[in-house]
Amino acid sequence: MLSKANVKYIQSLQHKKFRDEYHVFVAEGPKLMTELLANDFFDLEALFLIKSWMDELDNILLEKFKEKLQVVEEFELEKISALKSPNKVVGLFKKRTPVSEFDIKESITLVLDDINDPGNMGTIIRTADWFGIKNIVCSMNTVDCYNPKVVQSTMSSLSRVNIIYTDLIKWLQKNKNIPIYCSALNGLKLNQIENKNEAILIIGNEANGVSHEVMNCADEMITIPKIGEAESLNAAVATSIMLYEFKR
Amino acid sequence: MLSKANVKYIQSLQHKKFRDEYHVFVAEGPKLMTELLANDFFDLEALFLIKSWMDELDNILLEKFKEKLQVVEEFELEKISALKSPNKVVGLFKKRTPVSEFDIKESITLVLDDINDPGNMGTIIRTADWFGIKNIVCSMNTVDCYNPKVVQSTMSSLSRVNIIYTDLIKWLQKNKNIPIYCSALNGLKLNQIENKNEAILIIGNEANGVSHEVMNCADEMITIPKIGEAESLNAAVATSIMLYEFKR
Repeated sequence: MLSKANVKYIQSLQHKKFRDEYHVFVAEGPKLMTELLANDFFDLEALFLIKSWMDELDNILLEKFKEKLQVVEEFELEKISALKSPNKVVGLFKKRTPVSEFDIKESITLVLDDINDPGNMGTIIRTADWFGIKNIVCSMNTVDCYNPKVVQSTMSSLSRVNIIYTDLIKWLQKNKNIPIYCSALNGLKLNQIENKNEAILIIGNEANGVSHEVMNCADEMITIPKIGEAESLNAAVATSIMLYEFKR
Repeated sequence: MLSKANVKYIQSLQHKKFRDEYHVFVAEGPKLMTELLANDFFDLEALFLIKSWMDELDNILLEKFKEKLQVVEEFELEKISALKSPNKVVGLFKKRTPVSEFDIKESITLVLDDINDPGNMGTIIRTADWFGIKNIVCSMNTVDCYNPKVVQSTMSSLSRVNIIYTDLIKWLQKNKNIPIYCSALNGLKLNQIENKNEAILIIGNEANGVSHEVMNCADEMITIPKIGEAESLNAAVATSIMLYEFKR
């Protein structure tokens, strides 16, 4: 039986303030959970699961994490789940301290200037992982990568990409030795970029694009050529197309 | 004042059954509304708006549609809106009968095999519009393009892309003279495709990919090369990268 205090604690983790305070985040559902338990990148704090899913869980994982498992009833899972349809298991994991000193030479680094939508953020992290991008540098106002909706849509890629939150202007100024490209509406055509082995690639906010101050740090504006009439592309789509081209 | 019957009617349009019955769909928010009214592709049935937004509306549009406008109170807008935060205006538009005979020669046609998520569907339509794709052919189980969440995320691109729902197998068999490419995990690398002026491009369901029967209609399997470790790409992202490459 879940205690009232426990329910309250888990519910509080829907909010960044409490995730930051306890250094813990929530992940849900059998597929994501199996991946997170198997790759063991984030330390498990506790796992709340319904009986039927415990029976499905791999024996090695079951043995390894047995002291952290708690079987709950469906109605209890509903209380601690943020999903519309709770999905068998809710896990609490320790956040990792991001690597703050990392080498971005001869690689592509993604810079996010105020990405707002958790779904977009999750999709960007997942796509970055697909293309082997190791580092994502976010403005302080970019949505928290431990937001439950972000966690759900990254599909465990969160454990393979280093994500830091920092003052973008300062960070970009420190890295002026690497070519800095900024996504914009009227820049150089994406397919005309020549050196694509080493770059910093800036993506802007869904509604406002990249801020002027950040844009001023860039060496070159780049654009995905438009053939039709849509006013803009979704931010995660634009990021993905750019990463594809840089890694093509 | 909105009548009870009116509220019930508008709410019913959240469901495909009633959209099909009345041939009407819902769109919300000032930006989307301004675009839909200005491009005048869908016939307006009725527009429910709060006073402050009527004052902002362009005079020409105001004059043109004056007989179809109804000023409502915020609490009334809440009743008929499907958004968490209702956004000034709810419009009802007549659905268009899709063009069933269209020319796909010397162009790229997108085929969607059971795309399920309204957000993905909207993003795909918007990206197709960006790349000048004129026709999207959907399986009967693909999410309805007049679903309110699809409408919101297409950002008016819905008025520029022809979308039909049909039996994919029959449709593909009728169009065997055009090269048919199918997205898959182990196919030809996307950047190795040679003739990209004329093609049919099949995208599959978010969880299950393209069905076997549909896959069997394809001439070639194609894949977005993976460099990192993510298991898969989001369906809208994969579609967008493929359209970019075909139009590159």
